[in-house]
Amino acid sequence: MNSNGNLNTELVVPEVVIRRLPLYVRILTQFSNRGNEVISSEQLGLLLHMTPAQIRKDLSYFGRFGKQGRGYDVTILEQKLRTILGLDRAWNAAIIGMGRLGRAVVSYPGFAPEGFNILAAFDTNEDIVGQNISGLRVKSISQLATTVKKFDIKIGIVSVPIQHAQEVIDTLVKSGIKSILNYAPLSPEVPASVNVNSIDPVLSLQSMTYYMK
Amino acid sequence: MNSNGNLNTELVVPEVVIRRLPLYVRILTQFSNRGNEVISSEQLGLLLHMTPAQIRKDLSYFGRFGKQGRGYDVTILEQKLRTILGLDRAWNAAIIGMGRLGRAVVSYPGFAPEGFNILAAFDTNEDIVGQNISGLRVKSISQLATTVKKFDIKIGIVSVPIQHAQEVIDTLVKSGIKSILNYAPLSPEVPASVNVNSIDPVLSLQSMTYYMK
Repeated sequence: MNSNGNLNTELVVPEVVIRRLPLYVRILTQFSNRGNEVISSEQLGLLLHMTPAQIRKDLSYFGRFGKQGRGYDVTILEQKLRTILGLDRAWNAAIIGMGRLGRAVVSYPGFAPEGFNILAAFDTNEDIVGQNISGLRVKSISQLATTVKKFDIKIGIVSVPIQHAQEVIDTLVKSGIKSILNYAPLSPEVPASVNVNSIDPVLSLQSMTYYMK
Repeated sequence: MNSNGNLNTELVVPEVVIRRLPLYVRILTQFSNRGNEVISSEQLGLLLHMTPAQIRKDLSYFGRFGKQGRGYDVTILEQKLRTILGLDRAWNAAIIGMGRLGRAVVSYPGFAPEGFNILAAFDTNEDIVGQNISGLRVKSISQLATTVKKFDIKIGIVSVPIQHAQEVIDTLVKSGIKSILNYAPLSPEVPASVNVNSIDPVLSLQSMTYYMK
């Protein structure tokens, strides 16, 4: 689930388009790594399971990238989309919940190379607070608000059990966090200005079964 | 990323609607667990960050559920959506890649209660094949096709490193698998008849940063 209360652009780009942009970036990176300099809307469409016209419409929200009859310059388009998405800078994150799931998340090697730095870890369990896990000393949740300010933390990652998730999300929102990556299998209630993206394999499976019946 | 080559319904429901239906089911389950018998399109809209009109339009694809001025019957709507999504039966899955990520996936307690049973595990690494992990004896990938048939496996879960993911996905497709849950951070190439949903926290973060700039 996702909300986008605060759009900072003048032109409102549909959320479904914004959610596709990281996929464009990934595909462009794959093409670039293979030495391809140009990509067509047909090639992008095949990989994204969209028509070339839909690809051109998506990208038209952000300017004129393509060259008639030639396609898109892979490197230029990748860089522009990274800038549009705010991926040309690093973002600091804090994680709440350092049980098995939280430990798996902080040890995931994919965040840092993409500029997402988990700088602080929290738990409510006295036995876990104070432990050193993947280079992070686990703090008490009571230190959340001061830590968010001190380290300019913009993203909260929620990996607590479902029964604590709403309370933890409320605490993050009170600490000024506007972007939450939620691993708990619930649909949290948040103000419209807060953006929650949930990582939930069951939801993904449940939308595939529709096509499998 | 998601494709839906084979629609079995006469009315083509937009994929974005199908992808929201599991969220409706989750919210209805939450309401039901709290003892609520009725839910309004306003309440659903608040939780899904949509307007009541959008909620009514989503649900109108599947029939007339609401009662004028009263809202939706929580239990009836939940059951109907579960049937529509194919969640009124169990689905068998196989996982390929039993490294750290694969071990975390098979030990995730959320799949079985929702009817998703991981019945077989595969790896290419000779050191891992034959191990017993979370009750599954890891098989060689060469046994994939016969196992898929024998156990009526409909879903493939891919948790191999990125450099092996496309090859493993090709093998799944050749074995007749049409639904793939992909944990590898790449956009795989698959036929239009195959549905791939990717679980990728980096992609989720990358679409949130757009709103954080």
